[in-house]
Amino acid sequence: MFDLLDIIGTMAFAMSGALTAMHKKLDPFGVFIIAFVTAVGGGTLRDVLIGRTPVVWMQDLKYVYVIILGFFLTILFRKRLDKLRTSLFLFDTIGLGVFTLIGLEKGIVTGLHPVICIALGTMTACFGGVLRDILCNEIPTIFRREIYATICIFGGIVFFGLKKLNLDNDILYLLTSVVIISVRLLAVKFKWYLPAFDHKNN
Amino acid sequence: MFDLLDIIGTMAFAMSGALTAMHKKLDPFGVFIIAFVTAVGGGTLRDVLIGRTPVVWMQDLKYVYVIILGFFLTILFRKRLDKLRTSLFLFDTIGLGVFTLIGLEKGIVTGLHPVICIALGTMTACFGGVLRDILCNEIPTIFRREIYATICIFGGIVFFGLKKLNLDNDILYLLTSVVIISVRLLAVKFKWYLPAFDHKNN
Amino acid sequence: MFDLLDIIGTMAFAMSGALTAMHKKLDPFGVFIIAFVTAVGGGTLRDVLIGRTPVVWMQDLKYVYVIILGFFLTILFRKRLDKLRTSLFLFDTIGLGVFTLIGLEKGIVTGLHPVICIALGTMTACFGGVLRDILCNEIPTIFRREIYATICIFGGIVFFGLKKLNLDNDILYLLTSVVIISVRLLAVKFKWYLPAFDHKNN
Repeated sequence: MFDLLDIIGTMAFAMSGALTAMHKKLDPFGVFIIAFVTAVGGGTLRDVLIGRTPVVWMQDLKYVYVIILGFFLTILFRKRLDKLRTSLFLFDTIGLGVFTLIGLEKGIVTGLHPVICIALGTMTACFGGVLRDILCNEIPTIFRREIYATICIFGGIVFFGLKKLNLDNDILYLLTSVVIISVRLLAVKFKWYLPAFDHKNN
Repeated sequence: MFDLLDIIGTMAFAMSGALTAMHKKLDPFGVFIIAFVTAVGGGTLRDVLIGRTPVVWMQDLKYVYVIILGFFLTILFRKRLDKLRTSLFLFDTIGLGVFTLIGLEKGIVTGLHPVICIALGTMTACFGGVLRDILCNEIPTIFRREIYATICIFGGIVFFGLKKLNLDNDILYLLTSVVIISVRLLAVKFKWYLPAFDHKNN
Repeated sequence: MFDLLDIIGTMAFAMSGALTAMHKKLDPFGVFIIAFVTAVGGGTLRDVLIGRTPVVWMQDLKYVYVIILGFFLTILFRKRLDKLRTSLFLFDTIGLGVFTLIGLEKGIVTGLHPVICIALGTMTACFGGVLRDILCNEIPTIFRREIYATICIFGGIVFFGLKKLNLDNDILYLLTSVVIISVRLLAVKFKWYLPAFDHKNN
């Protein structure tokens, strides 16, 4: 189940990366690299910073195959993906939840402090997008208005809060995912965002 | 003493990063990440390249707390920080000296050649700023006019020169810091900078 | 022989990086860092992702010295390098072949799957240029029209195809390099490139 959600999330991230790159008029190689980086960039950064190398997608090729599949699907159906916008958004939100949990768990297994685990969860879920934006020569979206990352931090805090209740691990994971996914859906529905600083006028 | 200077430097780097991000009108999450990357990005890159993982701020949470404090101080006092410009500049210069020394020392402990140790010292002190500029979608300042990095290289050479004199370690550290900090102060006072190449006209 | 080609490739990459940085009007420190990153950035990323640290140029100083030499040669002869354009292009192409092979081999030694080895070969040959472009605040060239990276992937596939024939290692390496170098020369001569996606019009 969790593995399936991981694959769905990876696919959604890869497709959103590919779409961004196609809008930037990159060539197929560029589109593939941006899809790849969007999907596994956050987890790669996490693995490098905690020293778990070779990084995960080098040891488990399912990520590579899923991204290749997502890349071709995006190219083939690019005219029709606008109609699938809602499904893609849902899958992306599933990815947000699952990737945060994977990051949290890797931090715990490595024996790191909860604060660092929450940082790793957020990094896993959000820094693929940061790397995508850097490669596309943009200031990262999540540094501007999106509360994307804030939801992961919140999810991480909920996770460690629930963990103190000695819940079964499956229930702990399920609850945390549900919280992250629900808050994300509410955030988009009600247009929650962080206000930008306006240094000169404030 | 050295630990205190490390904290002062980290705080100054975090605050300068936060100010830059606020000028770019990022949201609080973006400002925090830029503050974080400016403060510990150089040391993180160093740790990753030499293979000392999990990277330093994952193992010693004082950096995280100092950056969080610097982040809130910058937000609270952002209108008044202009008046503290001189103090902030001094703290930043202290950071330059201390971070260079930390990088040099990590290189020596890892058994690397002096040339590489000097590179690591410079990286520790300067590449947080490089990563900050990349995330803010700018060509890094220190690649253009600033002699910031050149001072670290010079400091590293002085360090290995003095090291041959078999000085006590404390004195060696003190002298190197004083040299780096003094040259930086002189450089700013007398507006020393490296001339840019102008490929077409030269 | 192979070592010599490695040095020639490193020198060519460093010089092309230095030229790019000088066109961007960076100062000498910036030019040096861009030269350095262009030359060893791909290999550094590869080493970090597979966990071979300290990264290669920290352990084998020949790279540092070759880059320093390339940096000074570029500065001294910058007015005349246009006349050497053909030689530089040839050396760059040699670098493409050699670096791909080095990446492939490191992947094999690390025990990774052929698909990942091909990714590592491509990364070693092409991602120095990606990092150079990011530092110069450009969307990476190889993501737009260049088939540079595609040639490395093709070379990697040829390598594993030939490997099944149980050729002698030297012949295997020679053949793969010749293939990569020839395809690159043909690609430039006949202006082969990948078409960019134009999301709106397609």
